[in-house]
Amino acid sequence: MVTPNVSYSVVLRVELSHRPGTLGRLTTAIGEAGGNILGVDIVEVSDDVIVRDITVLAVDVEHANVIREAAESVEGVHVRSVMDRTFRLHLGGKIEVKGKVPITNRDDLSMAYTPGVARVSMEIAAKPVQVHKYTIKSNTVAVVTNGTAVLGLGNIGPYAALPVMEGKAQLFKEFAGIDAFPICLNTNSIDEVVETVERLEPVFGGINLEDIAAPDCFEIEDRLKGSLDIPVFHDDQHGTSVVVLAALRNAVKVVDKKMSELSVVIAGAGAAGVAIAKILNNAGVPNVIVTDRRGIIFDGREDFSGPKLWLAENTNPEKKMGSVSDALRGADVFVGVSGPGIVHRNDIEQMAPRSIVFGLANPTPEIMPEEIEGIAAVIATGRSDYPNQINNVLCFPGIFRGALDANALSITESMKLAAANAIASAVPEEELSPSYIVPSVFNRFVVGAVAISVAEAAVKDGAVRHDPEL
Amino acid sequence: MVTPNVSYSVVLRVELSHRPGTLGRLTTAIGEAGGNILGVDIVEVSDDVIVRDITVLAVDVEHANVIREAAESVEGVHVRSVMDRTFRLHLGGKIEVKGKVPITNRDDLSMAYTPGVARVSMEIAAKPVQVHKYTIKSNTVAVVTNGTAVLGLGNIGPYAALPVMEGKAQLFKEFAGIDAFPICLNTNSIDEVVETVERLEPVFGGINLEDIAAPDCFEIEDRLKGSLDIPVFHDDQHGTSVVVLAALRNAVKVVDKKMSELSVVIAGAGAAGVAIAKILNNAGVPNVIVTDRRGIIFDGREDFSGPKLWLAENTNPEKKMGSVSDALRGADVFVGVSGPGIVHRNDIEQMAPRSIVFGLANPTPEIMPEEIEGIAAVIATGRSDYPNQINNVLCFPGIFRGALDANALSITESMKLAAANAIASAVPEEELSPSYIVPSVFNRFVVGAVAISVAEAAVKDGAVRHDPEL
Repeated sequence: MVTPNVSYSVVLRVELSHRPGTLGRLTTAIGEAGGNILGVDIVEVSDDVIVRDITVLAVDVEHANVIREAAESVEGVHVRSVMDRTFRLHLGGKIEVKGKVPITNRDDLSMAYTPGVARVSMEIAAKPVQVHKYTIKSNTVAVVTNGTAVLGLGNIGPYAALPVMEGKAQLFKEFAGIDAFPICLNTNSIDEVVETVERLEPVFGGINLEDIAAPDCFEIEDRLKGSLDIPVFHDDQHGTSVVVLAALRNAVKVVDKKMSELSVVIAGAGAAGVAIAKILNNAGVPNVIVTDRRGIIFDGREDFSGPKLWLAENTNPEKKMGSVSDALRGADVFVGVSGPGIVHRNDIEQMAPRSIVFGLANPTPEIMPEEIEGIAAVIATGRSDYPNQINNVLCFPGIFRGALDANALSITESMKLAAANAIASAVPEEELSPSYIVPSVFNRFVVGAVAISVAEAAVKDGAVRHDPEL
Repeated sequence: MVTPNVSYSVVLRVELSHRPGTLGRLTTAIGEAGGNILGVDIVEVSDDVIVRDITVLAVDVEHANVIREAAESVEGVHVRSVMDRTFRLHLGGKIEVKGKVPITNRDDLSMAYTPGVARVSMEIAAKPVQVHKYTIKSNTVAVVTNGTAVLGLGNIGPYAALPVMEGKAQLFKEFAGIDAFPICLNTNSIDEVVETVERLEPVFGGINLEDIAAPDCFEIEDRLKGSLDIPVFHDDQHGTSVVVLAALRNAVKVVDKKMSELSVVIAGAGAAGVAIAKILNNAGVPNVIVTDRRGIIFDGREDFSGPKLWLAENTNPEKKMGSVSDALRGADVFVGVSGPGIVHRNDIEQMAPRSIVFGLANPTPEIMPEEIEGIAAVIATGRSDYPNQINNVLCFPGIFRGALDANALSITESMKLAAANAIASAVPEEELSPSYIVPSVFNRFVVGAVAISVAEAAVKDGAVRHDPEL
């Protein structure tokens, strides 16, 4: 049962007659229709009527219509208009590009633009590394997509992806002070995405790949990492894997197990699944099994290539075969990055004692927490309405902040591990519990802690730009 | 003789002994070295010394060093540091990307990002035209360059071009409220610039091409105009031509001549020269002659192609041959968009009475105004330190504002003519004089007047997007 929520909230602008009790009858009618009233504001008062804005949370669009009709049916009430709050927020887009200082007179213009700017351009032409000092490059990230795997919506294309990329850019600024700009590419070709980003590189200090379908995302990221000397990071892979590792580090403490003795089953061999398998491998988890639509991936199952070949060669050391259910028998951890309904209560019952279950499919997890309460010891989802939300917002602002501050050339494996440790450490050891293994996305200390750890790891790895001019 | 100016201003941080008269001796020494003191601020006072910041305008970098040495040589003065104000202004770049509203809690996040944003994405996927309504597209312009002809500096590349493109973006916001973002492309290929911009189109409502060398700029603009249904505008061509036409309309009034009887000589057949010839042609000027390095362009001079073929076929109706000097004999108007020194005082003397001279090469005009004072009746340059500055800032903010507001599909010839008329009309007829033919770049009424005229012209041309959803 979905509860009324803010993403389906509407503002009903209503005229109410002055007859006493009208507002009461209206709010009762809305309540009976299942609407959750967030606020009532007066817009205007005349001799005939009072106009009010009633802000109501609904379950979905249909429900908002039901609420409207319920309001209309109240005697003495006329609904003037219904405004969808989410759509209104997106009107005209969510980000803007502003000058850092105003240009109000000729002197401002002479320094920011011609003729003064020519001096800065000449300096960069003479010493190219100065582009990192005298331009936006050092603090600017491209949020790049081609719209082929947007949220859980699939290949909806670059135009429909834009509101998501704008939101991401907004989060970059809000959480980490990073200037991010959406780059939605009108192409499905791997080559074209790669060469376009390569040509755009002069303006950007980092590339955040977003919502690009697997397996293309793997090749695109690998090729860009090879050709560019700025950090390239596919958030759907690595952002997710970093937060999963952070959550897992804390979850094993709660259930009193060790990373070095875990057996983990990952359902889903897409962008996130592959990256989670790799980071767990790097973090010393000995037994990782990944399943795809055809079941457990094992060496020799078929003629694998690309990331699945890596999975076949580097996971499943016991060469198990079979389904997800087979894989889960006796496992310590389940990580779902696939879709709802692929595991059931009895699968979780077959896991080892004190099992850990991360059902991360959005918006509906692989298995709902209430189904396995009392069975799994620690449960996490991607949702905000259950405890332990695994959300990339915990990672990408801080990891880019650290990489940019360190002038990093790339994002290395140890930078990701450092980010995961910093996120995990944001929950004080003494506060760890089955319902508190990751910090809140609004814990503003996380980004700084992640940034510092990531920058230190970058320096340690030698993956930073050294130049006396910088 | 160049005067000390703000683009070469420095801040000297100096320690002064408490001995009376030290500051006086210091400011005298700076003055004698030719420095122009803009301000003196106290930084700190201790028992030994007073630390002050002295802001000084210099002529150039060498001069700033001379000033520093002059300051050092004063008894009781020690220069701690010299800070270049222009470089400081550019540190870290000049623009930022910000959310329009803060994201401070879970409700904000649910509406701006997941899950709420999915509703907006689905709406755009279902009705693509909605991208103009619910994203930044409708107010966002790409400032696109490949750095092949930056200011007067030539092919300094996309990195060195970035400070200029940032400045342009800053002006878009400051003057017209438009969100512009620099796109500096690492390629010299026409095909690659065209296809890259085509792939980037989903995010942008307009394309401002900038500082791309001729003749590539012509083909790039033509191809993009053909393939995109958003305005594409090469500012070096059309911005310049619009402001030249505006200035010329007012100049002919001052000298009491008629557009329909003018003979005009344009020196320079690059981006600006070609565009000026075309707009004058559209504005009904009967006799336009264009010269390039080889002299007057006439039909049959050589095997022309591209824009020069157009010039050969559509200008120089009397089929004159020879040099710039030959062309100028008896001409009413000279427009220089080439380089300093290509015309001389005696060339201007040979022009028709009450001649109009626009020497627009930057920073040094084709001929300095003081050389032809009393000869030409109206003189304009691209510089801010002479009357009548021909500056693209008068055009591009307003023309894009109008195009975006009208939901224009392109920028048509009549939109450009409308912009020129609006700029010209910003100088009240009764105030027109030889030294006041164009409004100040800081006349904030210009952008609105241009925008309205341009939007009306777009609607009249039928060059606008019609959709009941918008």
